[in-house]
Amino acid sequence: MLKNNPTLEQQSLALASGKETAVSLTLKALDKAEEFKHLNAYVVLNKEISLAQAEASDARRAAGKLLSALDGIPIAIKDNYLTKDYPTTACSNARPLEPSGQDATIVANLREAGVIIFGKTNMDEWAFSPTNVNSNIGPVLNPHNTKHVTGGSSGGSAAAVASGIVAAALGSDTGGSIRMPAAACGIYGFKPSYGRASRHGVLPLSWSLDAPGPLASSLQDIEMLLPYFLGNDPKDVSTFASTDFKKEQSNNTLEIVYLTGDGLESSAEVEQAVKKSLSASSAHVKEAELSHVDNYYEAWEAIIFSEAASYHQPLLQANADGFSSSLRVKLEAGSRLTALEVLHAQKLRSRLINTLTNELGEWDIIATPTLPVTAPSQNEEEQEFAGKTVHAHKSMLWFCVLGNMTGFPCVTLPVGFSDDGLPIGIMLMGKPNEDEKLLAMAMQFEQSIKNT
Amino acid sequence: MLKNNPTLEQQSLALASGKETAVSLTLKALDKAEEFKHLNAYVVLNKEISLAQAEASDARRAAGKLLSALDGIPIAIKDNYLTKDYPTTACSNARPLEPSGQDATIVANLREAGVIIFGKTNMDEWAFSPTNVNSNIGPVLNPHNTKHVTGGSSGGSAAAVASGIVAAALGSDTGGSIRMPAAACGIYGFKPSYGRASRHGVLPLSWSLDAPGPLASSLQDIEMLLPYFLGNDPKDVSTFASTDFKKEQSNNTLEIVYLTGDGLESSAEVEQAVKKSLSASSAHVKEAELSHVDNYYEAWEAIIFSEAASYHQPLLQANADGFSSSLRVKLEAGSRLTALEVLHAQKLRSRLINTLTNELGEWDIIATPTLPVTAPSQNEEEQEFAGKTVHAHKSMLWFCVLGNMTGFPCVTLPVGFSDDGLPIGIMLMGKPNEDEKLLAMAMQFEQSIKNT
Repeated sequence: MLKNNPTLEQQSLALASGKETAVSLTLKALDKAEEFKHLNAYVVLNKEISLAQAEASDARRAAGKLLSALDGIPIAIKDNYLTKDYPTTACSNARPLEPSGQDATIVANLREAGVIIFGKTNMDEWAFSPTNVNSNIGPVLNPHNTKHVTGGSSGGSAAAVASGIVAAALGSDTGGSIRMPAAACGIYGFKPSYGRASRHGVLPLSWSLDAPGPLASSLQDIEMLLPYFLGNDPKDVSTFASTDFKKEQSNNTLEIVYLTGDGLESSAEVEQAVKKSLSASSAHVKEAELSHVDNYYEAWEAIIFSEAASYHQPLLQANADGFSSSLRVKLEAGSRLTALEVLHAQKLRSRLINTLTNELGEWDIIATPTLPVTAPSQNEEEQEFAGKTVHAHKSMLWFCVLGNMTGFPCVTLPVGFSDDGLPIGIMLMGKPNEDEKLLAMAMQFEQSIKNT
Repeated sequence: MLKNNPTLEQQSLALASGKETAVSLTLKALDKAEEFKHLNAYVVLNKEISLAQAEASDARRAAGKLLSALDGIPIAIKDNYLTKDYPTTACSNARPLEPSGQDATIVANLREAGVIIFGKTNMDEWAFSPTNVNSNIGPVLNPHNTKHVTGGSSGGSAAAVASGIVAAALGSDTGGSIRMPAAACGIYGFKPSYGRASRHGVLPLSWSLDAPGPLASSLQDIEMLLPYFLGNDPKDVSTFASTDFKKEQSNNTLEIVYLTGDGLESSAEVEQAVKKSLSASSAHVKEAELSHVDNYYEAWEAIIFSEAASYHQPLLQANADGFSSSLRVKLEAGSRLTALEVLHAQKLRSRLINTLTNELGEWDIIATPTLPVTAPSQNEEEQEFAGKTVHAHKSMLWFCVLGNMTGFPCVTLPVGFSDDGLPIGIMLMGKPNEDEKLLAMAMQFEQSIKNT
């Protein structure tokens, strides 16, 4: 994150103390959006719509009728969430550019809390790419170095937060699409457990992997946002109500497993930064090797390719030219898979979950780097690290797919910079459905590093 | 159920009062098993093993070290649950007949409660048939009329309970395999919500549909058993912990939706018996039509065929002759499906869940007959009802597949007999994961009928 960006917490306090109004915050955000226009973070952002919402918030505050601590704060929305205010394009030419007239459940939750729905952010076409280069409005540039990608597919949301336009933004994550750009841009990103956050109104990529979640400027900000993401939604049949989590000040030593193995390598500078954060923390860290990592990656590909092909089949038949050729190739590959191939992939998911659950000993958190290398440059096709040459797409997804294959909650937090000034993140994975507990442990972990 | 069969509750009280011992109960059960040997309910039952467990229970009781209210009571196990005592054949010639040396999680739970693991019951080959005619040891005969089938695939468990050999037995349900034989034999059967009961150690048929559950002599007996079925099991990655349910005496009027539509018809005498029970109850009943029922049935077939093909592929390649020709045909059909066909079927599941959740108005229970007709005779290939001629396999599955396609909890209870003396059951379906609430509502429903 660039320095001195305000957090949600700070914005909320500034509003409460009268140092800012919703209108003043929104005007600043509009100015910042103009200042960082070259990053190409936005598909659409309307000044009048934003200011009208800000004025309504200020009127509520004046009348003593605040909706929440987030009332009056601008938050950006990835362009695969339906919003009443704006059309939803998924950065694809195949989708009609009309307003949908409805809000995704999570957008509706935030709107009811008084949040200013601050425009729609750039993303990879249909969210099916990990660099945010493959968008119909062009790539998003990394605020830390515009020669480099942000990572995708929620690259616009990450750039909008990292450049300080907004303190938080919405993303979605099928193989790392929240965590990859968050890590590459030096901010925080949270992928909820599969089934805890409603996908209603979020255009799907792969329904057994997709999870919507926040990108933000601090873990405290994610804590403020999480209640608007989690919960049973009758409109998303995969969601369920979960047991209550009571946050308690815990000084228990966190048991962290650091995963290693063939297919889980990282560059020397990334590994060093991540391991340094682990050593600096108060956690007890042990290493454990995971085998068959390449099989899990291939299984993830079989699932995302086939489910995306299934979802897009009607639109692809009706309007093939609306899809980029690189996406068409993926969808056609997915449509050629057999049932047995996809079911074998689903069985590997169970094996992975079983391995992580039962074969690593006791753990509170599984940790890896979020990305094995820093963000590639815009035209870099391959990355070299740990003696391997890896396609830049695969290196982005390297660790993150484990979170989607298991459905476990994951959070990424920044832990430093490379020699050339690009951010490095650590990924912490928790137990399934224990999202609030994972976040609390991540806060404990980060606090213990700050205290050393 | 044949008259005067004791329930678990009665057996537990008889043990507590000293009227029975575990040994006397077990000897009675062994006598009954001999008396009803012609039903072919059992694959294996060992007198010495059973009596040794009974003697151990009596010794615990004498020492004041009872393990539970079920300590000393014989319960029969479907032959697809692994048990330490006996081999597990799934009534297939393909599987080696050796003891597995381990218990399924549910069997282990019951053993820890002191239950006598009372033999392994007949079932359809690999649980993949709904009549219990297709078993390597021959069909199970219906205790109410031995010319008729019990329904399957848990037919041996149903016959063992209905004939009074045991008060309860274990079954598994992928398209109705607990509920169909329970209804056809005039007893009670409960299919838990998908993910609430552990399948660890239960040989799979179709992993996204399978649910293990009890067959029993009363709803009170199911209430005694349910805690041993439900709960998070790290060895079954699909299970999860659920919110606590507190049973409270409720006199709220139950809102019941009675489902109708093309593909949901039943014979006049079944419909009459079921509707009579609904009218006699204190519930408020409204009818609602469900469309696309045939599509849901075909989707269920695509899922079970392909998942079974995926699971059996290695054994089928190694030992094709170990499978019956009728099962081989199904597995080969499943292996020819494409990923897009199976994924389309999964999308129809979501549509069905969404329809039942959001498009029927408010409801506590969805009710249908459990079977549209009474049990077919052993050689009956087709059944005629409501102006339709339906293959006997499909008529068995007619209503029950809705429970597996949605994953919702279901219970069947007997509501009368046909003119020729065959049992008729009603199926009550509850909201997902609210298994204990469904059971409490079913008890309220049944009590209100008894009170009229």
